[in-house]
Amino acid sequence: MTHAIVADPSGRPIRVGLDVGGTKIDAVAVSSSGDLLARLRRPTGWGEDAVVDSVVEAVTALAAEAGTDLSAIESVGIGIPGLVDAVTGRVLHAVNLGVASLDLADRAAARLGIPVRVENDVKAAALGAAALRGIEGSMAYLNLGTGVAAGIVVDGEIWRGSRGTAGEVGHLSVDPAGRLCGCGQRGCIETFCGGGALARAWDRPGSLPVRDILDAAEAGDEHALALRADLFHGAAAAVRALVLSADVERVIIGGGLTALGDRLEDGVRAALHAGAESSAFMRSLNLDDRIELLPAGSPAAAFGAALVGAATPTKEIVTHG
Amino acid sequence: MTHAIVADPSGRPIRVGLDVGGTKIDAVAVSSSGDLLARLRRPTGWGEDAVVDSVVEAVTALAAEAGTDLSAIESVGIGIPGLVDAVTGRVLHAVNLGVASLDLADRAAARLGIPVRVENDVKAAALGAAALRGIEGSMAYLNLGTGVAAGIVVDGEIWRGSRGTAGEVGHLSVDPAGRLCGCGQRGCIETFCGGGALARAWDRPGSLPVRDILDAAEAGDEHALALRADLFHGAAAAVRALVLSADVERVIIGGGLTALGDRLEDGVRAALHAGAESSAFMRSLNLDDRIELLPAGSPAAAFGAALVGAATPTKEIVTHG
Repeated sequence: MTHAIVADPSGRPIRVGLDVGGTKIDAVAVSSSGDLLARLRRPTGWGEDAVVDSVVEAVTALAAEAGTDLSAIESVGIGIPGLVDAVTGRVLHAVNLGVASLDLADRAAARLGIPVRVENDVKAAALGAAALRGIEGSMAYLNLGTGVAAGIVVDGEIWRGSRGTAGEVGHLSVDPAGRLCGCGQRGCIETFCGGGALARAWDRPGSLPVRDILDAAEAGDEHALALRADLFHGAAAAVRALVLSADVERVIIGGGLTALGDRLEDGVRAALHAGAESSAFMRSLNLDDRIELLPAGSPAAAFGAALVGAATPTKEIVTHG
Repeated sequence: MTHAIVADPSGRPIRVGLDVGGTKIDAVAVSSSGDLLARLRRPTGWGEDAVVDSVVEAVTALAAEAGTDLSAIESVGIGIPGLVDAVTGRVLHAVNLGVASLDLADRAAARLGIPVRVENDVKAAALGAAALRGIEGSMAYLNLGTGVAAGIVVDGEIWRGSRGTAGEVGHLSVDPAGRLCGCGQRGCIETFCGGGALARAWDRPGSLPVRDILDAAEAGDEHALALRADLFHGAAAAVRALVLSADVERVIIGGGLTALGDRLEDGVRAALHAGAESSAFMRSLNLDDRIELLPAGSPAAAFGAALVGAATPTKEIVTHG
């Protein structure tokens, strides 16, 4: 891949991107011309200090993996769940990481001696998916994981919206008689196609409940068939919501549920197709042609974080003490 | 009001905006500094030739109303229902006007000797509402009329999206068991809060069926109470969809149903409030504070059309004759 990021006035040729998840950090080193130089995964610490430690460790290990040291790294970008102030680099309410409030950019930059920029993980992944898929117009990245959220990218820029809820289609209710959502509403899209909601509704032991649901559905289990239909219906509803509001050209599906591969992609596509059967208007949108699934294990999120980091104007860099 | 539009190199001080509806044209003359100089309404003709005729007649009459003639008019902007190619000024499928395909900009410009620009009516109204309400960031204009659609404006520009479906939240399904929509889907937002769908569901004689529904609901009629709840629920769902996807800062409600005034605004606000009662997340969005109703008879749509017309760069003007 070649995605020219910015000129390299620093003489430091490497941009690092970290996707900080609840259990692991996915870290990539990217060249100034956008080539993937190195990639590794490290466990994520719990709590504010441990998150900073694991970020520093991941960057240091990645530099070694790329055959160099921190002095070769121009910028670090971090995608992380929670409410992120992309200007200050502060993270709030990253509950899966034990983080209430963390000045992540400042603290990591002080430890590394490298400018650090932080972004919400779904928004960073959207930027990375748009770049990796070579999408120049508008797109949404629909993250199907424990929860459901989307990031929107237009002309290579994250669409921020007014108050940080752009792409939050997971909490649109599409069924007043639907399951209760963790957010307090009923029938949210996330209750149909969020891994957490599906696991709770399935309520049987197993480490990969959504995979178990698909397997059981294929074996004819009635409950599993209903939940599988919910999964495909919910993801299709999310795609429709993104196109009928922001009118993005493409919807790229990512997140943990992409481990289901073709079974997920074919199911969502079939649900979009079925939903358009009775509607010439919906057929005219060709939604089933406008989605694609990222391959499981795609570095889109970490790659997007590297783009976020590289976008830091030099003049905004925090001086380190 | 003062909304500076563009400099006036032509020496022609007047911009005209027309909102072409199914029965009438609302026409305004606006000064180069954005002041409303004159306004009138004319009947709309049926069919392609008649639409062009009524546009020409409205512009001519408006010039007279403003105490001048066509030579004083710098630009004409037209908002019109249907599929509009804003670049070519061609209108397709304006079924309520009997228009299948019409090169409206070229034909009106040739007749008037004035540059003409054409835009979808809801998008033009969105631009006008944003200007009249002084909104500088992001907003959606939610048109509650016979049908339901929204236009999105960001930083003073119409948000076009990829294929022209930005803001088409009327055809998001929010209830799989809901009424059948004209679009072929079930439970679309438009089936809840579109004037046409409500009139069909009410199915009693009367020229103002939605007003009749509200009156009957106040008198305790069970069917009317249910339909009134649908109206408020549907409009609230549209507001939520716009904020949880495009994350607009404000939602301005316009369209024919604004004739219901406070009864509509209070009802939608109450529905938003009730929908957030069980959800801290939804409460945090303060949606009930982010909506407002345009006054009935607001010139927003025609004013927006004038802005569309004034935005025509001189170098793109079609030569006439």
